[in-house]
Amino acid sequence: MLHRRWLVSLAVFASLAVNAQTPPKRFAQPTTIRELIAASKPEDWRLLDPAHTLYLELATGRVVIELAPAFAPRHVANIEKLAHAHWYDGLAITRLQDNFVAQWGDPLNSKPEIGEKHLPAEFVRSAAGLPFTRLKDVDTYAPQVGFAGGLPAARNSADGEAWPVHCYGTLGVGRDNDPATAIGTELYVVIGHSPRQLDRNIAVVGRVVMGMEHLSSLPRGTGELGFYEQPEQREPIQAIRLASDVPLAERKNYDVMRTDTATFEQLIELRRNRKDEWYKTSVGRIDVCNVPLPIREHVEHGEKAVSRLPR
Amino acid sequence: MLHRRWLVSLAVFASLAVNAQTPPKRFAQPTTIRELIAASKPEDWRLLDPAHTLYLELATGRVVIELAPAFAPRHVANIEKLAHAHWYDGLAITRLQDNFVAQWGDPLNSKPEIGEKHLPAEFVRSAAGLPFTRLKDVDTYAPQVGFAGGLPAARNSADGEAWPVHCYGTLGVGRDNDPATAIGTELYVVIGHSPRQLDRNIAVVGRVVMGMEHLSSLPRGTGELGFYEQPEQREPIQAIRLASDVPLAERKNYDVMRTDTATFEQLIELRRNRKDEWYKTSVGRIDVCNVPLPIREHVEHGEKAVSRLPR
Repeated sequence: MLHRRWLVSLAVFASLAVNAQTPPKRFAQPTTIRELIAASKPEDWRLLDPAHTLYLELATGRVVIELAPAFAPRHVANIEKLAHAHWYDGLAITRLQDNFVAQWGDPLNSKPEIGEKHLPAEFVRSAAGLPFTRLKDVDTYAPQVGFAGGLPAARNSADGEAWPVHCYGTLGVGRDNDPATAIGTELYVVIGHSPRQLDRNIAVVGRVVMGMEHLSSLPRGTGELGFYEQPEQREPIQAIRLASDVPLAERKNYDVMRTDTATFEQLIELRRNRKDEWYKTSVGRIDVCNVPLPIREHVEHGEKAVSRLPR
Repeated sequence: MLHRRWLVSLAVFASLAVNAQTPPKRFAQPTTIRELIAASKPEDWRLLDPAHTLYLELATGRVVIELAPAFAPRHVANIEKLAHAHWYDGLAITRLQDNFVAQWGDPLNSKPEIGEKHLPAEFVRSAAGLPFTRLKDVDTYAPQVGFAGGLPAARNSADGEAWPVHCYGTLGVGRDNDPATAIGTELYVVIGHSPRQLDRNIAVVGRVVMGMEHLSSLPRGTGELGFYEQPEQREPIQAIRLASDVPLAERKNYDVMRTDTATFEQLIELRRNRKDEWYKTSVGRIDVCNVPLPIREHVEHGEKAVSRLPR
């Protein structure tokens, strides 16, 4: 009985299981993402660029963030300037609103004012020249959704605009009612159901690619909007560094799956139509925020590496 | 400068703010949910039924769950039988998969087998006779979405079926590949972006109405599928009780906003089209999992009570 009950436990979402009994090998027709990754080629992946990668260091570990200069170049440049100057070090996560965001900043105004004082809104950009892997399925909030440069994104052919969409792990720039107040000194990460109403209303500057659990499992703030009521409840930020500023021995290099390849389109289809025994009703659809974006430790010349599969 | 910076912090999502400066009063045309609640009438609310409410007691506090007998009557009845027999007491949360689920059960098979051994799948029901407040906006996964009996739900007029949809806080019944293995001894709560691919594939039996933070902020499991690798990492379940089995002095009564009223339709419109200064781009759409479902401590005859607004 013990065995059977454990089996029930482990198989509850068997579709998400990594089949530990089957060693990775190349499959002609992958039926799972694990198989798809095993069959992928080096050109299906890209190395995270250390010059546009942030390490947010917390007591529990490192949060790895990929910045998105293609969408918000001036905001990203200012954030990189602040990180390079160690401006964020010693600040704290001040807000943890359940099913919404983790947010950090400088509530005591303890840091010197460096970098930009105001920035123009970078909420949308021109869709022209932006590679876009479009999803087939309708979306509640946008005419077209898909992936652009590894980021979940949306597009409107009527006005030619494109913008990143808010999914779990999205990094955005806090602001006051005046958009010019968003400069990167206050940042937030989505930790709940996608708050898509924020799309086109705020600058999205990247997404967390590793270590979300260090943010999502923090205690929730009990003040208004999820702010911590006592300063000592805030989670200290040991440092935020550009990966390119970190000594090689302290870096970890990651490959993320490209979103502009036939392999990625195959991944989308595998998630739209799951082929395992657990599913009784064919889904045949997918929401842009439910498409997994695989990441793995960087593979040098065919070396094996363990991949991490988002759910 | 301190003041300004704090203002930036507090106003980042000003739309979600509860305006502490304005005492609640009745507004002819509410422009915020806070105003809508202040202007609501007693008949806009319903008391949570203690006979279909579970209290999940953890070391950090109580999680309040409303069961959904209208959708999965036999599963709900079995869960109520197990709770009434104190069957869940002393078990543990065994799985915490980031951006997916918190799950509990009896991994050591320590409990007697009581209640049902097998149950027929209750994944969908007939839409006939089910009050349904329909959203205007398209949904990726279902022909129609809305609210039925306080639960986010979907409907298909082609086959006359209705089913609950998986949103943040949804309670479902874990199962093996065979649907009959879902009896209620393994339960899960959604703690991330809505995993809508589970809709119509599993029995949904309710939703968390209070205390989500006690589940969502637990440490993530590091084993396969987010299971805790060491038994001592599991979060003990002190008790799961039917509210009606709990002495009156230890109960708290809640009102939840009805979803079949003009007031609730007004709430949906307020969230589809936010009227505050923070939003620069009109949204004009809403996802079924982004509609807040207000709850407050039970109000006796016009007595004032502080309401809790989901984000």
